[in-house]
Amino acid sequence: MKLFEAKVFIEKSLQEIRESVGDRNVISACSGGVDSTVATFLVHKAVGDRLVAVFIDDGLRREGEPEFVVRILKDLGIKTRFIDAKEEFFKIFAGRVDAEEKRRAFRHEFYSVLGKVAKEEKILVIVQGTIKADVIETVKGIKSQHNVLEQIGIDPLVYGYKILEPLRELFKPEVRMVGRELGLPAEISERMPFPGPALSLRVLGVVTPERVKIVRQATQIVEEETLQLGTFQNFAVLHNDKATGIKNDERLYGNIITVRIVDSTDAVTAKAREVPYEILFKIAKRITKEIPSVVRCLYDITDKPPSTIEFE
Amino acid sequence: MKLFEAKVFIEKSLQEIRESVGDRNVISACSGGVDSTVATFLVHKAVGDRLVAVFIDDGLRREGEPEFVVRILKDLGIKTRFIDAKEEFFKIFAGRVDAEEKRRAFRHEFYSVLGKVAKEEKILVIVQGTIKADVIETVKGIKSQHNVLEQIGIDPLVYGYKILEPLRELFKPEVRMVGRELGLPAEISERMPFPGPALSLRVLGVVTPERVKIVRQATQIVEEETLQLGTFQNFAVLHNDKATGIKNDERLYGNIITVRIVDSTDAVTAKAREVPYEILFKIAKRITKEIPSVVRCLYDITDKPPSTIEFE
Repeated sequence: MKLFEAKVFIEKSLQEIRESVGDRNVISACSGGVDSTVATFLVHKAVGDRLVAVFIDDGLRREGEPEFVVRILKDLGIKTRFIDAKEEFFKIFAGRVDAEEKRRAFRHEFYSVLGKVAKEEKILVIVQGTIKADVIETVKGIKSQHNVLEQIGIDPLVYGYKILEPLRELFKPEVRMVGRELGLPAEISERMPFPGPALSLRVLGVVTPERVKIVRQATQIVEEETLQLGTFQNFAVLHNDKATGIKNDERLYGNIITVRIVDSTDAVTAKAREVPYEILFKIAKRITKEIPSVVRCLYDITDKPPSTIEFE
Repeated sequence: MKLFEAKVFIEKSLQEIRESVGDRNVISACSGGVDSTVATFLVHKAVGDRLVAVFIDDGLRREGEPEFVVRILKDLGIKTRFIDAKEEFFKIFAGRVDAEEKRRAFRHEFYSVLGKVAKEEKILVIVQGTIKADVIETVKGIKSQHNVLEQIGIDPLVYGYKILEPLRELFKPEVRMVGRELGLPAEISERMPFPGPALSLRVLGVVTPERVKIVRQATQIVEEETLQLGTFQNFAVLHNDKATGIKNDERLYGNIITVRIVDSTDAVTAKAREVPYEILFKIAKRITKEIPSVVRCLYDITDKPPSTIEFE
């Protein structure tokens, strides 16, 4: 097997993108995650101003993320549209508790919103940040990745699009190499993986603005306290289950947060990290102190397999 | 403050029990836990054959526990009745998910069953293994301890009983000292605390025989792998939440187990133990391997307060 060379990949890819796109315009939904951002930049390099990047604010992003992503895109001279779709997304989550149903609902809303923008811009080609692990796991039925339409039997033409997936043959470390080679800031190329449906997968049970706010706060605390660990992925999950606790000397039937910190290279397998207890206890203390409704913190000690990295 | 002397306490206590009981007969529901077993033995020492011990099999006990407790009681020459009430208990749990409601339902069924036996035996005095921590927490409203009737506003006379609580002034370490002094086997005097409502508190959501079986198996694995730690309490909790995992190369939306291991002296406060990761990972591997429906294991990293030791 030949060693992966980012430079060679990029050269070949730029040519393929140009051939595939022709003189059409292209739209790319960029969430700020490594995959979609690298894909956006690669296509921008190939077709320049014929690309419009779209950031959809679904209300499910991490603290400060919408502003961060839009700033990065604009700094690099990419035409960018910011779409506030928070209300629409929370509406479709109402009453849904099943993980797969939530993923499907997210996907449907995502393509509806993106479709509207594409129509306004009169664009028919959509860029997807699909990578190899997404394809493998979707085909295997381990999860339905929201950006692997064809593999799950959805003809993208039904939505009226042609799909462009420049990273579909790459694993995560190769995507990062491409990002570095393209000169992306380390904040992007070294970014932790973050799923398309975002914090909705990390709120077990019904997704509401209040519950997303709790998991967003917990996520920020976990990220702050684990910066120096250099792990593949660090995040928080809000349970639907509740547990008893004691706050202000009184019984509180409160929320439970799980902390998940894993090592992995490609997300296909992963190992729970042996995080020093000092750090774990500090995280638990901060979360239960700074988020009044939370009375209990758990640490996920399962590898993938038999677990997955995310809970949903 | 005077140092606690088990011998002095026992002398004084035997006299008080005899005075309080007079020539009546006494019944004691013995769950096999430290508190109820020490109380049963103490009263047996005071009144001999006028005591009938009752083991109620509510279907919520640990693996092998019913046989173990009955054997111990009989070995020590105590008149013992074994009551199979599994069906009745599971019936009252049907459809109940709220923690307090489950505790209340358990308490009600417990006193109904015990009341029936007491009537059959024509006994009006009931021994309770109430200890000081139960009283403190019930009065504070942190939990409603099922054996602290008066404190929660239930007149035991409504049930037709007089209650005898010989350990109500003692903390857990003192109860153990009394147990040792009474010559109880270490299997009892050094036993981990186990709540009255047993595994029903460790099945979040609805309590069914199938779900109790899962948490019972997980509990056994946790106990086997943590024997050498000498911690105050080690157990497993089955979540109502589910999470994605991978079993036999296929996606499984499966069960979640939390492992809870704490140090404490009196159960009023507790510290999450820094269990070596080697042990935690082994527990997670065994649980996810030996219990097919479980895909994920979590470790509780919260002290009491702000958590409680148990989840419900």
